[in-house]
Amino acid sequence: MEILSKVNDPKDLKNLTIQELEKLAQEIREHIIHCCALNPGHIGASLGTVELTIALHYLYNTPIDKIVWDVGHQAYSHKIITGRRDQFCTNRTYKGLSGFPKMKESEYDSFGVGHSSTSISAALGMVLASKIKGLDNKVVAVIGDGAMTGGLAFEGLNNAGAEKSDILVILNDNQISIDKNVGALHNYLIKISTSQIYNTTKKRVWDLVGSKKIRSLLKRFAFSTKTAIMDKGSIFESLGFRYFGVIDGNNLEMMISTIKDIKEIPGPKLLHIITKKGKGFKPAEENQVVWHAPGAFDKETGERIESSIKKAPKYQDVFGNTLLEIAKTNSKVVGVTPAMPSGCSMNILMAQMPERAFDVGIAEQHAVTFSAGLASQGILPYCNIYSSFMQRAYDNVIHDVATQDLKVIFCLDRAGLVGEDGATHHGVFDLSYFRPIPNLSIFSPINEAELRDIMFSVQDNIYKTTIIRYPRGNGQGIEIPKNYSFIEPGKAQLLHDGKGVAILTIGPIGNIAKEAAEKAKLEGVDYIHYNMRFIKPIDKEALQHVCNNCHSIITIEDGSVIGGLFSAVSEYITINNINISVTPLGVPDRFIEQGTIPELITECGFDYDGIYKTILNVNKKFSK
Amino acid sequence: MEILSKVNDPKDLKNLTIQELEKLAQEIREHIIHCCALNPGHIGASLGTVELTIALHYLYNTPIDKIVWDVGHQAYSHKIITGRRDQFCTNRTYKGLSGFPKMKESEYDSFGVGHSSTSISAALGMVLASKIKGLDNKVVAVIGDGAMTGGLAFEGLNNAGAEKSDILVILNDNQISIDKNVGALHNYLIKISTSQIYNTTKKRVWDLVGSKKIRSLLKRFAFSTKTAIMDKGSIFESLGFRYFGVIDGNNLEMMISTIKDIKEIPGPKLLHIITKKGKGFKPAEENQVVWHAPGAFDKETGERIESSIKKAPKYQDVFGNTLLEIAKTNSKVVGVTPAMPSGCSMNILMAQMPERAFDVGIAEQHAVTFSAGLASQGILPYCNIYSSFMQRAYDNVIHDVATQDLKVIFCLDRAGLVGEDGATHHGVFDLSYFRPIPNLSIFSPINEAELRDIMFSVQDNIYKTTIIRYPRGNGQGIEIPKNYSFIEPGKAQLLHDGKGVAILTIGPIGNIAKEAAEKAKLEGVDYIHYNMRFIKPIDKEALQHVCNNCHSIITIEDGSVIGGLFSAVSEYITINNINISVTPLGVPDRFIEQGTIPELITECGFDYDGIYKTILNVNKKFSK
Repeated sequence: MEILSKVNDPKDLKNLTIQELEKLAQEIREHIIHCCALNPGHIGASLGTVELTIALHYLYNTPIDKIVWDVGHQAYSHKIITGRRDQFCTNRTYKGLSGFPKMKESEYDSFGVGHSSTSISAALGMVLASKIKGLDNKVVAVIGDGAMTGGLAFEGLNNAGAEKSDILVILNDNQISIDKNVGALHNYLIKISTSQIYNTTKKRVWDLVGSKKIRSLLKRFAFSTKTAIMDKGSIFESLGFRYFGVIDGNNLEMMISTIKDIKEIPGPKLLHIITKKGKGFKPAEENQVVWHAPGAFDKETGERIESSIKKAPKYQDVFGNTLLEIAKTNSKVVGVTPAMPSGCSMNILMAQMPERAFDVGIAEQHAVTFSAGLASQGILPYCNIYSSFMQRAYDNVIHDVATQDLKVIFCLDRAGLVGEDGATHHGVFDLSYFRPIPNLSIFSPINEAELRDIMFSVQDNIYKTTIIRYPRGNGQGIEIPKNYSFIEPGKAQLLHDGKGVAILTIGPIGNIAKEAAEKAKLEGVDYIHYNMRFIKPIDKEALQHVCNNCHSIITIEDGSVIGGLFSAVSEYITINNINISVTPLGVPDRFIEQGTIPELITECGFDYDGIYKTILNVNKKFSK
Repeated sequence: MEILSKVNDPKDLKNLTIQELEKLAQEIREHIIHCCALNPGHIGASLGTVELTIALHYLYNTPIDKIVWDVGHQAYSHKIITGRRDQFCTNRTYKGLSGFPKMKESEYDSFGVGHSSTSISAALGMVLASKIKGLDNKVVAVIGDGAMTGGLAFEGLNNAGAEKSDILVILNDNQISIDKNVGALHNYLIKISTSQIYNTTKKRVWDLVGSKKIRSLLKRFAFSTKTAIMDKGSIFESLGFRYFGVIDGNNLEMMISTIKDIKEIPGPKLLHIITKKGKGFKPAEENQVVWHAPGAFDKETGERIESSIKKAPKYQDVFGNTLLEIAKTNSKVVGVTPAMPSGCSMNILMAQMPERAFDVGIAEQHAVTFSAGLASQGILPYCNIYSSFMQRAYDNVIHDVATQDLKVIFCLDRAGLVGEDGATHHGVFDLSYFRPIPNLSIFSPINEAELRDIMFSVQDNIYKTTIIRYPRGNGQGIEIPKNYSFIEPGKAQLLHDGKGVAILTIGPIGNIAKEAAEKAKLEGVDYIHYNMRFIKPIDKEALQHVCNNCHSIITIEDGSVIGGLFSAVSEYITINNINISVTPLGVPDRFIEQGTIPELITECGFDYDGIYKTILNVNKKFSK
């Protein structure tokens, strides 16, 4: 790290030669690979954007000028050259660096991120803030071709193009998001990026053609005559942006000279660059889906290090396999995913029955309304959206599904605390935000067998729209019976009967609670334990049984303690004028940062120890 | 109604001549004007689409073929010719017709609607459902130029353009939504619709030019040579749609002959038509903003009938005037609205300080993330979004504002039951869906003076991001003091002290509760009444005072009884092991249809009588 070791701040780039900057790019790549080999991260996107990052920090006066990264997986180099080189090996760990840009972490992180398609809107806000404050700093949004398909990005372009303010959008086109990109915009970008000289010419009065700067840019983009003006990028030009491209985003010299010219042109501009996801690390270049976030690996051989411990199947695998099983026997069943076929394992269905699985791109809102359209014609969609991304489609569930009482099965993957992705990705609000919505049932399985059971059960006409929320990662490793068991709507499962303390759990946290309660029993605690299964409708018989037999209740949920299971139980108690205490365990009313899931549930107090101690304390306090 | 009286079903159109259909259009207009004069509705949009509606039902085999209306304000003619002619005068009334297409109302209403930009997604779902089921029916989405700016519409186009399925999108361009349209797409549509022959020619190999049908279409669109191929609609062509237009959507004969040809062309197609909002009714043509939904009027003179009763100022006026007042003294304050400047009265600020107010188009998500961008640079945005539309931007509030603890003041207009717009527009979930989100305060004023007070107060650094929710319509008519009173964060207001029954209210419903409680007092009921003001943070001192002095609590909120004030109070009680009953009044767990607000709160049981009786019953039941 001959050069990188001296880069403590973007200012340290300013006096380097192109050759030194190219060497720096190489060293940054090595550092990213080194750190991510030991401490897994989103290596693919960040390896692709090293030259872009260097060019931006070299040319712009950050942090006064603002770089707004979309999603943020691609910002590792940015972190490394903005004072976080040595901390970078703590990336995504508890109390370490966030895997995403984050305002509280660095003044160079102009806007926190994690979800897709926010950068243009946020950048436009910054541009207009500067205008109001009379400042003339520059703002650059960097957005991937995948993120560009999100409707929010279009809303941002539409507003920015009309505002005529000075904004540069860099479209970082690596032709992949997590999975292969889909959609018409993707096809269009492919078309314009594979034909440097468009196969037609046209005469067109371009309002800036008199400018020397533009002419020089045009020459660079390989136009040989004055009348041959590019037809590329018309979608962006239609929206009021001046389009420049396509250029090789991994060619540092070209990136620097191009952006240097473009940055001085006023108004909304879009620069279209092609970068290679995984650039500079062969295995990552060759299998971009796997190397989006590959886990730990050997940086010499590129071999991924799989844990030797045999693990239980993931909830994701159970979802994927079950959906295929169901689709084979029920011709009405289809799968819908917004750009997460491999993440949620819908690729299993997609591989075998491609006509029955729809990857609609990064477009959660559309995924839900599209599912409603399918459901309106008697199709039964299993629409799989990560819990925290479902926040994007909240209105669509209410307005397009629930008000019309259409039957869509929403499978909320990554529900609860998700671990290393941190605050933006924890799926901890879903129980709370869906509970007030009429016509919905809300279920969470205690294990992978229950996930399979509910996926089969909801086909029955007794079920209407059902939310099935389940976590990221491995199941309990229990045996999955060949035939599914029908799950009765709105019924809790009694796991232990007794008196004294009631333990009401929803989801897989029930397994930890079960163990903790069994240990407490050895200390003389008598208890009832219900796996609630449904938070809506809540099982009132179970609640009444508990209220009749217990002096206190502990609710345990892998979600916010406001509005979810705890609230449902409290409502039942106060409305029925019952005198019983409730102690809520769950995610407290603050944003939880990144860490392993065990670290985070310990922080929140609903790990094994936390539950065990709470049972003992509650029993001591309320038993008379 | 010589012809209309015989049209009981779209089949009755099939044998009419063009002249008869034109006469029918005239009669439909008269019927719309007649009904809307007495019984207010969204007259403007529907007057513009009479010819479109006739053409579609004349050419397509509805209800087997599907017409999907976006937003639905434009669908009055559709209702009238699909069996609801005589009921149409009950439009938007209690137990009458919905103001929007609604699946439960008619088999011709293929998809319910109310919010914007859903039609392409829903229509694509229907197209693919037919494909799966082996049907070959046709699907048409009708979307306005305003709705086209919503990101969801773009997500739908992006998916539909790639699917290559047979879908017709009709872009109904009337160059206005409720207010004048804004944004780059709008500018673009203006440009292509005002230059029928684009001012350049280009050579281009168009894959369908060999077709006679296309050639004949081209001729109709006024191209004189074989090489002169339109450059219009490139934004849609880029997204995989075949673009046709622009044609006069109020010319019935041209509409019929054009759509007749287009409907047989396979694949994704977009027909761009121009219609005139308010067409055929002079006052509505001349002032399109006012006549979007003008209230009652004299159909002969076009004079709007204003109630002679002097009414209190609207919450909207107080919002608009206060925002201007604040902006004048606080240079950091700006307003942001997604296409509702006149609806929320931000046009007051816009008129006087245009550089400080941003209408970002129908784009709620962008409005919020854009506000976050402004806030990240120290600007204080007052972002006004109708409560039910805020559901569209839920993730943006969580991900872009709350996780970063940025300070944005969200003003949720149309909170609570909104009346005639019905289920899709009631803003009854906001208290519930925002309460679990960390870093937010949630406030609702009891009257217009408190609205003004909180808008001033939140400028203080003690306030972070604050949600201010207030209803549609007139305030209480109380005098607004010249100087505002500072509202202390998280503090309730004690309106009546006593013992016995506790009445906890949030928002203007507190005024009705106050009267009902005063009447109950005459019957010997002693009580405490708190205007809670904040649901988050909830005033625990007030709750403890109530628990110390009362035998029972009644919570009253103009919102869902799940997750809001009732839940917050219940949580406090059970966590503190207090023995006190709570009776919730509010919106029950079902969708409430349209009607006047008094009719709807009566249905929900929290009108004056409902509250009064509940106070008496609760007092009788729990006082010992």
